[in-house]
Amino acid sequence: MSESAAGGSLARLRARVAEVGAPLCVGIDPHPDRLPQGFGPDARGIERFARGVLEAVSEFAAAVKLNVAFYEALGSDGWRALERVRAEIPAEIFCILDGKRGDIGSTAERYAAGLLGHLAADAVTLSPYLGEDAVEPFLAYPGRMVYLLARTSNPSAAQLQGLPADGRPLFERVALWAAERWPDGRVGLVVGATAPAELERVRSIAPGPGFLVPGVGEQGGDLVAAVRHCNGRAAPGLVSISRAISEASRGADWREAAGAAAKETLQRMKEAGATLAV
Amino acid sequence: MSESAAGGSLARLRARVAEVGAPLCVGIDPHPDRLPQGFGPDARGIERFARGVLEAVSEFAAAVKLNVAFYEALGSDGWRALERVRAEIPAEIFCILDGKRGDIGSTAERYAAGLLGHLAADAVTLSPYLGEDAVEPFLAYPGRMVYLLARTSNPSAAQLQGLPADGRPLFERVALWAAERWPDGRVGLVVGATAPAELERVRSIAPGPGFLVPGVGEQGGDLVAAVRHCNGRAAPGLVSISRAISEASRGADWREAAGAAAKETLQRMKEAGATLAV
Repeated sequence: MSESAAGGSLARLRARVAEVGAPLCVGIDPHPDRLPQGFGPDARGIERFARGVLEAVSEFAAAVKLNVAFYEALGSDGWRALERVRAEIPAEIFCILDGKRGDIGSTAERYAAGLLGHLAADAVTLSPYLGEDAVEPFLAYPGRMVYLLARTSNPSAAQLQGLPADGRPLFERVALWAAERWPDGRVGLVVGATAPAELERVRSIAPGPGFLVPGVGEQGGDLVAAVRHCNGRAAPGLVSISRAISEASRGADWREAAGAAAKETLQRMKEAGATLAV
Repeated sequence: MSESAAGGSLARLRARVAEVGAPLCVGIDPHPDRLPQGFGPDARGIERFARGVLEAVSEFAAAVKLNVAFYEALGSDGWRALERVRAEIPAEIFCILDGKRGDIGSTAERYAAGLLGHLAADAVTLSPYLGEDAVEPFLAYPGRMVYLLARTSNPSAAQLQGLPADGRPLFERVALWAAERWPDGRVGLVVGATAPAELERVRSIAPGPGFLVPGVGEQGGDLVAAVRHCNGRAAPGLVSISRAISEASRGADWREAAGAAAKETLQRMKEAGATLAV
């Protein structure tokens, strides 16, 4: 499928990365125990925090990633906050809902209805464990994108993902599968920055897909490696940074600190070799 | 860990399976396109349907499984419906929230806060792809249970799950890992009835964990094999049936039809060899 057929979100992502000058994705993941001083640990508190961070970073963010867990933890009130925060994301910013959903056929179709339909995300993250049945219902939404978990950034990631699967680590199998099955750039891969060797390796075997790279900052991943390897031939990539930006300060200056951290991170990404020509 | 240390939900599951006489789990998954005639395809419609089915099947169900996708598809209104339906589940019935979540450390902790804390489920389904970081935060809730996806019931399940991983299919690796890592019965496995050979195989290598077996009915799985293999030495299993019960009729008799289908399914399960001595 050509890029024009792939449609809206991919083109918008490309344009926005070019506009801000680097593949900065800001994660806005409000934890009730880590809100600025004076905020209540409730849906009102997380919404107020998330909207403040969003406003502070919008100038610098190519994309915003909302991890659904932080909203869902508060039930329907948290989901209402998620809806409101999502509605505030400026149209030019690429919106990723990080839900790591993974279910079959008609159930996956329901998740797609919630995340791509109701919440109108540009992209979602999905687990590959159920195979393509879990992916196709999302691609039925014209032009939207999916990031499939390949090599995640957590300590126990290698337990399953590192198993030798038919001659290669499982995460390489996932990367090859996605790159071959959906070569048009609409299916990217989540590859953590905490495993730079694996990141480089996945890029070498799968040059096409854009990567969504978490794990820089709080988790200690390598920003330079993340920026260097995130872009694919078929789609630009994104480096996702959450707490190092959104929780730069918990004092009265939390909003300014988040904006300053986003600005500074964007600058470091540009220096790390982000290119406009993606 | 002893069973008493494993605590509440497992003991309650055991008692309830003995009480109804077979491991019947009824899935209540309201799809807006498949509601009884005259129901609106909105949150009110799905809640009304779900509560009606729940009431009709309560006498016969050892457990009820709510697939979160069908509620989440409608955003915060759907989540409100989920909260209300969950609150109506009688205390003696084991409540599974089928969300197939899978995220890392502090994010998994947020999902656990939502599903086990806020919604007070007895058990959740989880994806194994991120390793034990995705599981442990749920086990931090004393006495609650987790069902880890091993071999799912969908057509593309084998794409990843069937890959030879270090000498065994990946789903067997997951089963062995879970059985060895958490031998106390609190971590069960999802093993679909649509692959009876795999079901039998997983039981033979992992005699301990209880299985949650979907795929009987609509998906064509074998009820006898499901009932025969679902029980583990460490925990009773459950056979989950959704549409064949909840959507037995879309006419004015939808509620009575669901109750009758549950009653008849329970009877077939008893005949298939369900034992009270689990």
